[in-house]
Amino acid sequence: MAEGILRTGAAETGRVEAFSDGVLAIVITLLVLNIKIPDQLGAGDAALWRALAQQLPMLGAWALSFFFVLVFWVAHHYLFRQLANIDRGLLWLNGLFLFAISFTPFPTALLGLYPGRSASATLLSVAMFATAGSFSLMRWYATRHARLFRPEHAAQAHRALRRSLLGPGLYFAAILAAQWAVPVSIALQVAVPLLFFLPMRPAAAKATT
Amino acid sequence: MAEGILRTGAAETGRVEAFSDGVLAIVITLLVLNIKIPDQLGAGDAALWRALAQQLPMLGAWALSFFFVLVFWVAHHYLFRQLANIDRGLLWLNGLFLFAISFTPFPTALLGLYPGRSASATLLSVAMFATAGSFSLMRWYATRHARLFRPEHAAQAHRALRRSLLGPGLYFAAILAAQWAVPVSIALQVAVPLLFFLPMRPAAAKATT
Amino acid sequence: MAEGILRTGAAETGRVEAFSDGVLAIVITLLVLNIKIPDQLGAGDAALWRALAQQLPMLGAWALSFFFVLVFWVAHHYLFRQLANIDRGLLWLNGLFLFAISFTPFPTALLGLYPGRSASATLLSVAMFATAGSFSLMRWYATRHARLFRPEHAAQAHRALRRSLLGPGLYFAAILAAQWAVPVSIALQVAVPLLFFLPMRPAAAKATT
Amino acid sequence: MAEGILRTGAAETGRVEAFSDGVLAIVITLLVLNIKIPDQLGAGDAALWRALAQQLPMLGAWALSFFFVLVFWVAHHYLFRQLANIDRGLLWLNGLFLFAISFTPFPTALLGLYPGRSASATLLSVAMFATAGSFSLMRWYATRHARLFRPEHAAQAHRALRRSLLGPGLYFAAILAAQWAVPVSIALQVAVPLLFFLPMRPAAAKATT
Repeated sequence: MAEGILRTGAAETGRVEAFSDGVLAIVITLLVLNIKIPDQLGAGDAALWRALAQQLPMLGAWALSFFFVLVFWVAHHYLFRQLANIDRGLLWLNGLFLFAISFTPFPTALLGLYPGRSASATLLSVAMFATAGSFSLMRWYATRHARLFRPEHAAQAHRALRRSLLGPGLYFAAILAAQWAVPVSIALQVAVPLLFFLPMRPAAAKATT
Repeated sequence: MAEGILRTGAAETGRVEAFSDGVLAIVITLLVLNIKIPDQLGAGDAALWRALAQQLPMLGAWALSFFFVLVFWVAHHYLFRQLANIDRGLLWLNGLFLFAISFTPFPTALLGLYPGRSASATLLSVAMFATAGSFSLMRWYATRHARLFRPEHAAQAHRALRRSLLGPGLYFAAILAAQWAVPVSIALQVAVPLLFFLPMRPAAAKATT
Repeated sequence: MAEGILRTGAAETGRVEAFSDGVLAIVITLLVLNIKIPDQLGAGDAALWRALAQQLPMLGAWALSFFFVLVFWVAHHYLFRQLANIDRGLLWLNGLFLFAISFTPFPTALLGLYPGRSASATLLSVAMFATAGSFSLMRWYATRHARLFRPEHAAQAHRALRRSLLGPGLYFAAILAAQWAVPVSIALQVAVPLLFFLPMRPAAAKATT
Repeated sequence: MAEGILRTGAAETGRVEAFSDGVLAIVITLLVLNIKIPDQLGAGDAALWRALAQQLPMLGAWALSFFFVLVFWVAHHYLFRQLANIDRGLLWLNGLFLFAISFTPFPTALLGLYPGRSASATLLSVAMFATAGSFSLMRWYATRHARLFRPEHAAQAHRALRRSLLGPGLYFAAILAAQWAVPVSIALQVAVPLLFFLPMRPAAAKATT
């Protein structure tokens, strides 16, 4: 067998998926730790409700990042179930993707603490760009090495790759928008998962029917 | 095969279960991090025991939420072992359920810090309502798309769905109770897992014998 | 099949093991977060080495609890590979065991912060007693319902149960010792994993040869 | 079968790999929690960018340790896919390896907070030495007990062991360098993963072709 191909089939993709699932599950769950309540509030419910209201930007940032990570878990899941083999290159590119996405909790906390500022929106969109970019890189690599795909998915792979470049492109626009209009940048960060993943449904349907 | 059905059988439900297990395992284990001891206590055991006694409400909130999450892990486990297929809709509803339950550590910490207040009991019962509601939604979706269930479980699925609506209903009552009588709300939060899951035993027995 | 028996064999024990592995992996890894360095130290290496030296008790508590959890992961691993079935009772007893062991990070932090005090040693030995006790309870339950064990392991199960009672017994002694002689209590906490698990080797050998 | 051999093949290595994956995934994801932003910054982006700039050493330490852990996950993955059996000795040595690597977040935080100091570089290289050393120990043990390797990998195992001793050796040099020239020590910490794992590619190729 060719250089660097590991176990074939489900057994091999299995452990890479398990490790990636672990990292993604932890990232997605750690996000909630950013939401904090001061522990020396005065008596009464009013003070507590006020403190909770101050956490609303953090709550929004948490929800935004939760669905951002979830969307990439789904994308990862779909990509890997089409793979028959994993080679060393894909293993490292998967590591790079995990590196990018595991950074998410930090800019999320930043946006929650300083919601209106350009610096926060910039850092979060840079992190999202890096995540989407490294995911596209992984998909590009798998497409170039056609033996990695299961035969029935190889034809569809090129089309999926073109579509997957939309993600980094839009997140790059979100970085630019963060320099002049923070709300536009945040709107893009919210919209991209919706815009980008919903249109995959018909294509996925065609491929599986 | 119809639109959006992924791999059939154990391989496909496997990774969704693994990711969900990961999230639930992390949520359930993070809860303990809410219990804190001041690090500048005076000498002697008396000061330490007093500081520990002050953590009793947090200890109670931790135990309450631990069993809340555990009960949903068991429910998730039982639902998914009855499924033969997972489609995209179920994947996203599962994500919504994970979103709701991964919020648990925050209202748990709140209840532990401010145990007697309406705001704390409200937020925790809202979180529990959202978790139970999204779980029922997932069960409802799977029941409507009968092909998702293994044939031997399809008949039982409608009955389980009706029973599963009891959860969100009682947690909604806990939200209302939190506005007037916090102890009643907390009593409901403690009781629902017991009331709701113990009666499943005879039904499960009938279904498997 | 009898009431409450789920899927037979590896598929069923699989998800319970996966969830338990997740909880144990998180508990064992969170322990290191207790070790902290003040972030406003003066310049120079001397101040930093002094701050590190002050963390030595926490380092010891971390190591103690790491191996405590590891020993229970190994014990859990050995118990579950002997099981052919899991019923609802065992599922809940496993949850109780996870509840007890997931508490570990808190008393570990306490012992690290206040190493010489009776209260710290008491709380950690209570947590260890609860963990060992709930594990023995799980083993006792599995032994009583002989259908849960794989046939080749049923005979050995009673002997293993008797041996497993040594754990809670010695941790109970550690609780008592913590009231009068903290170092004796800590010595017991260190010694029990060694005393208790090393002698299993010859028995395991006999059983598998 | 001989003493202490557990289930043969994939089922047995499976749970050890799953637990190890869990620990490694948590360690690698927790690292980002070290990066912190003060929550009482003045208004404006300038203050925020300055605060972010102060986190650059922590960012570097995070990236360094992320790839350190990733490289060991890959090495662990490669070692275990060559094993046919796991015995009790290997189980404990794997535990020792997890003990060493789960310490990583602490010296990483230390290096990020106090980047130029000998104490930080010393502690991180000691942690890396312990991790690499315990991994080599595990590989040595598996090589000595040849029945643990799959037959097709047994021949290659000795060569891989010799190569794997390079890691602890270079990390030991990093400890020494930390006493006189911190930048040299950090350069070694950055370089070892590159030096050590890239040359495995041709050897791996030979073994699998």
